[in-house]
Amino acid sequence: MADRTTSGGRSARRTTSRKHWTGPLKLAAALALAAAGLAGCAGGADGMMRGTGDLGVVIERAAGRIQVVETSGMTRLATVAGLGDLSHASVVFSRDGRYAYVFGRDGGLSRVDLLRARVTHRVMQAGNSIGGAILQDGSVVAAQNYAPGGIRLFDAATLEPLAEIPAIGRDGRRSKVVGLADLPGRRLAASLFESGEIWIIDAADPRHPQVTRLDAGREPYDGLVTPDGRWYLAGLFGEDGLALVDLWQTPPAARKVLAGYGRGETRLPVYKMPHLRGWAMAQGQAWLPAVGRHEVLVADPARGWQESGRVALAGQPVFVMARPDGRQVWVNFAFPDNDTVQVIDTATRQVVRTIKPCRGVLHMEFTPKGEAVWLSCRDEDRVEVYDTASFARLATLPADNPSGIFFTVRAQRFGM
Amino acid sequence: MADRTTSGGRSARRTTSRKHWTGPLKLAAALALAAAGLAGCAGGADGMMRGTGDLGVVIERAAGRIQVVETSGMTRLATVAGLGDLSHASVVFSRDGRYAYVFGRDGGLSRVDLLRARVTHRVMQAGNSIGGAILQDGSVVAAQNYAPGGIRLFDAATLEPLAEIPAIGRDGRRSKVVGLADLPGRRLAASLFESGEIWIIDAADPRHPQVTRLDAGREPYDGLVTPDGRWYLAGLFGEDGLALVDLWQTPPAARKVLAGYGRGETRLPVYKMPHLRGWAMAQGQAWLPAVGRHEVLVADPARGWQESGRVALAGQPVFVMARPDGRQVWVNFAFPDNDTVQVIDTATRQVVRTIKPCRGVLHMEFTPKGEAVWLSCRDEDRVEVYDTASFARLATLPADNPSGIFFTVRAQRFGM
Repeated sequence: MADRTTSGGRSARRTTSRKHWTGPLKLAAALALAAAGLAGCAGGADGMMRGTGDLGVVIERAAGRIQVVETSGMTRLATVAGLGDLSHASVVFSRDGRYAYVFGRDGGLSRVDLLRARVTHRVMQAGNSIGGAILQDGSVVAAQNYAPGGIRLFDAATLEPLAEIPAIGRDGRRSKVVGLADLPGRRLAASLFESGEIWIIDAADPRHPQVTRLDAGREPYDGLVTPDGRWYLAGLFGEDGLALVDLWQTPPAARKVLAGYGRGETRLPVYKMPHLRGWAMAQGQAWLPAVGRHEVLVADPARGWQESGRVALAGQPVFVMARPDGRQVWVNFAFPDNDTVQVIDTATRQVVRTIKPCRGVLHMEFTPKGEAVWLSCRDEDRVEVYDTASFARLATLPADNPSGIFFTVRAQRFGM
Repeated sequence: MADRTTSGGRSARRTTSRKHWTGPLKLAAALALAAAGLAGCAGGADGMMRGTGDLGVVIERAAGRIQVVETSGMTRLATVAGLGDLSHASVVFSRDGRYAYVFGRDGGLSRVDLLRARVTHRVMQAGNSIGGAILQDGSVVAAQNYAPGGIRLFDAATLEPLAEIPAIGRDGRRSKVVGLADLPGRRLAASLFESGEIWIIDAADPRHPQVTRLDAGREPYDGLVTPDGRWYLAGLFGEDGLALVDLWQTPPAARKVLAGYGRGETRLPVYKMPHLRGWAMAQGQAWLPAVGRHEVLVADPARGWQESGRVALAGQPVFVMARPDGRQVWVNFAFPDNDTVQVIDTATRQVVRTIKPCRGVLHMEFTPKGEAVWLSCRDEDRVEVYDTASFARLATLPADNPSGIFFTVRAQRFGM
């Protein structure tokens, strides 16, 4: 399998020199170029003609690089460098699955052609950013920024800036923006940490986005939308409970649910912001990592989001991810248990497997139909692939300090 | 946009003749060929390098052809001929989204490269067939056959035959196979019409599939699996009610639900087999076309599949399709109301729109995130695209007697 490193947008292999060549040599060279051109269609220097539905991206956080991988043969296809500070990075995909939008911690936003394994466009759009989203129809990408606090909208094809929305709350304070997610209908939801608000943004006219403000509670630190695009949930750092918005309600309103959520034995240290995105919907139930406890909670949206159960785990859960069919939920953990992964059967609510893949399991990603799951092993420089039925390890791929893993199927799902 | 018709596997544009050309002319020709080769990478004679996540197939039923379309710009990219009798045809996709497997009424099974717009492999695998499925990991395709009654498994890359399972029921009769669907775990479900059975097939070893037989009831005429891969439902022609299997149960068993289903004012004529696949899950509820009544039923899987409501409609519903976020359900109708489409808001259970697109609306397909829906207008030789929020018509594409429309996002969903 080709494994090519490229950087920026340079395409060094297209230049030729014709100065001193004789006739037959010119012809031979031209025919060779023709052959190379045709070969390029199948997978040579100029990109790969292949399906994009089984592609993915692995963040190599220390090197500022991404790997382009494919999940059918479980191989690495290429790497792309020059993506800046990826110590915290997230990725969304174009609706055709061909382009990845990589949001870096340093405010870099890069559009990467996965078939050509190169950056097509790159902007430094903020001083400090934690991620982004793409609108339902794929026409606009949005970045959520800590500094300056706000949301910026860009044309998805060219990264031309379209609008900037400073995150100034009703109290006049400028806030960090967290929990940005796309909603049906060319809208976005996001939360403002310092101001304690949830915003619903109508980006139908992306140069003139319209904001609806809701009071969320104290210090929403992350937010997410359910796969059906109906519920937006924000975790609260400054109080217990979660803020919930039913996006089908008109006008939308935020209310508190899961009042006990967050009430651990000890308050979390300020630097350890939990990940709310590490929770999942499976069989209509919400599975959330408990805060400060070695448990995952189950809550029922159909019964007012009341807690319907808990499952005891090996450590403090970070990411709780549902297999696409909802039959299993996989959990990874914070240090010192970040060498462990557990699998819960959602029908019985029992832990059915405990796996010790490696030190530093940072992220898990299921293949589109969930027959396999990919894990990043940050401290052992590799990615591992497991069969979700047998739990056999199917493959190992080398990777430099891998963190996030993102598959192109996210292009077809809300909130991803 | 390119609109190319190709047939079979021929690639006629690659031959060149060099016999009588002079030096400079040879060079010019070779350079032109080089340019054409490089252009081919971007979209010329040898295929398209593009994402596959926004591609789709439109069946041109009278001509035995398919169109390859893309839903971002809403255009036709190519047509592919030589696909035999497509008067009843269905399509599944490879997991990377690049290949379409077209099952034709005459038993033809064709593997089509959507990027090269050509048939790569084709077999005549039965005398009379109504469709097929692809296993969860994409390695095997399965055909469901009327004559000879049975299921055949093929290697997805080469169409090499792997196994044949004659559909012989416990009563010794050979049955037509209906309702074939893929399940998590490299399994399939199907129903046998004459024998009244549901089969769960373990194809982990596709050369030696293992069959588990369940009694379904009288004459299951179609079947489907819910998007989470948990429930298999078969419609019964010879009695009222539906047969249901909870695939999470071990061992699996079939039971009857919706006892009143099928009880119309008059029995359906034998030639008019209803389509069970024209039902949908939205917000955890099942929406089914009523049989012999101008209504759609709503049933609740969480409450024993009991009926929880009905919505009165303009005619006899054929296909009931849920928008991916579950907020709307779109319905088309049997003759004489097959010029009409209605939209139900699932939150209020009200019909919110009645559209009259054309005569002969055969099929509807949503884009992956549901911002648009494509309809086939068989009797007016076109396909129409509607915005699902505003109901505005966004585009019209010419098509010869179009029937089924299938988008590559199905590659990432069970039972499709």
